[in-house]
Amino acid sequence: MNNVFIIGVGLIGGSFALDIKQLYSKVAIFGIDKDETHLDDAIKRGVIDYKAQLKEVSKADLVILAIPVDATLNVLPSVLDDIEDDAIVFDVGSTKEDICAAVKKHPKRRNYLAVHPIAGTEYSGPGAAVSGLFKNKTNIICEVEETAFKLQEKALKLFLDLGMRIRYMNPKAHDKHIAYVSHLSHISAFMLGKTVIEKEKNERDIFDMAGSGFESTVRLAKSSPAMWAPIFEQNKTNVIETLDEYITNLKHFKTLMENEDFEAVYKEMETANHIKHILNGIK
Amino acid sequence: MNNVFIIGVGLIGGSFALDIKQLYSKVAIFGIDKDETHLDDAIKRGVIDYKAQLKEVSKADLVILAIPVDATLNVLPSVLDDIEDDAIVFDVGSTKEDICAAVKKHPKRRNYLAVHPIAGTEYSGPGAAVSGLFKNKTNIICEVEETAFKLQEKALKLFLDLGMRIRYMNPKAHDKHIAYVSHLSHISAFMLGKTVIEKEKNERDIFDMAGSGFESTVRLAKSSPAMWAPIFEQNKTNVIETLDEYITNLKHFKTLMENEDFEAVYKEMETANHIKHILNGIK
Repeated sequence: MNNVFIIGVGLIGGSFALDIKQLYSKVAIFGIDKDETHLDDAIKRGVIDYKAQLKEVSKADLVILAIPVDATLNVLPSVLDDIEDDAIVFDVGSTKEDICAAVKKHPKRRNYLAVHPIAGTEYSGPGAAVSGLFKNKTNIICEVEETAFKLQEKALKLFLDLGMRIRYMNPKAHDKHIAYVSHLSHISAFMLGKTVIEKEKNERDIFDMAGSGFESTVRLAKSSPAMWAPIFEQNKTNVIETLDEYITNLKHFKTLMENEDFEAVYKEMETANHIKHILNGIK
Repeated sequence: MNNVFIIGVGLIGGSFALDIKQLYSKVAIFGIDKDETHLDDAIKRGVIDYKAQLKEVSKADLVILAIPVDATLNVLPSVLDDIEDDAIVFDVGSTKEDICAAVKKHPKRRNYLAVHPIAGTEYSGPGAAVSGLFKNKTNIICEVEETAFKLQEKALKLFLDLGMRIRYMNPKAHDKHIAYVSHLSHISAFMLGKTVIEKEKNERDIFDMAGSGFESTVRLAKSSPAMWAPIFEQNKTNVIETLDEYITNLKHFKTLMENEDFEAVYKEMETANHIKHILNGIK
């Protein structure tokens, strides 16, 4: 690999750039971003080597799209139009069904790999990029069989060099499952934040009374709306379904409290406690 | 201080024990717990020095009640019955209104201080006790004026030695505010855990796809039902109110998604983003 193009020099794109520079010393990293200040900032921080334009992707060996998923729908086909035959392009979006569908019949479909690294923080922009972000993280690859063998191999080598665990899924299953373990968590946090903000006019009081528990539960409410609105739009059906189930469970809990059935409240929590074992990876 | 009695040798009681032993080298720590194995474990771990019985609190200089809030309602009055005039008793419960009411007319009311340290983790039992848990944490004291001056001073010295920030509130306001920043977060996490568990039968798949975001949002679902059911019972009215508002906000979010109004979805998240500044303590 000589020339790597990062489209979207934020938390994820920037973190790929930092690790790739460290792994492959001879590589040149080109950054593309609609926000010029992001590019300047990324150069100053040593995240990228050069600013570039979209039309320059013809000289890329690897292109990483790390932009909001609605922008990916537009940018990915035109990137595929312009790249060389031996170049690999992958996106890192949190939805996979619409993106895979958008390039299904593209003549360069075999140059594209649909990827979702389960990694990130609630921060955004080049300043949020950190090295080692992907180590021991799960990387979900969709429709791997639609990508050319040699290019699968090339991408896989990078992911293994980064220390990622690879999982293969179809886009439909990915979008359905990720709605539960990621998209719903974000809505839960955003609405928790909203509920508390609405109620508490004196902010200093919230801050003083909020412990690490609240902070942890509401953390994702700091996430970027520009990134998340398009995810919810693309995964609308699955997200509405999970949200529906979540609301039903909350209403049921409220009803139990209204009926003063605290034995049942206890049992609800005991059932949810099972998440301990799941998160520990113990069955 | 010579003899400190810890009633409930778990996460909070045990953490007080560890710090007090470090701060005051001459103190003897007596542990009382209805679970005998907790006491054995606490002695083995060096959390307490001796096992004790409730009737022995007559020799205490300080008694800390760190048991579920329903048990506190029963145990606190009988502890006050038995202690000496210069002893101070405080509880650490997450509700204050019912507990303060339970001892309002107790002849030893002035020996009691109503306390809520905003500190803890999702773990429980003596093995969860850690030293330094209270450093830089907020400690809410209710009805301070009902406690004898000298005993206020004694407790305050301990809290300052532990590095806590003190805030004074009335029990009614405490229970109302804490419903938003603590009790609601727990229900939000418990029900998130339940929703995901219900849906995903293959647990290994949840684990593989769950990132740090989900883990953070669902963390509190690991909490002890024995501790939380009585809190929800005592703070029922406030918790139902917050839960109602939370459900309304979630339903509104879902309606916006159903109407495909993703501009409004964006704005909802932007509003919730404000939590960043609140949590940073910046106005």
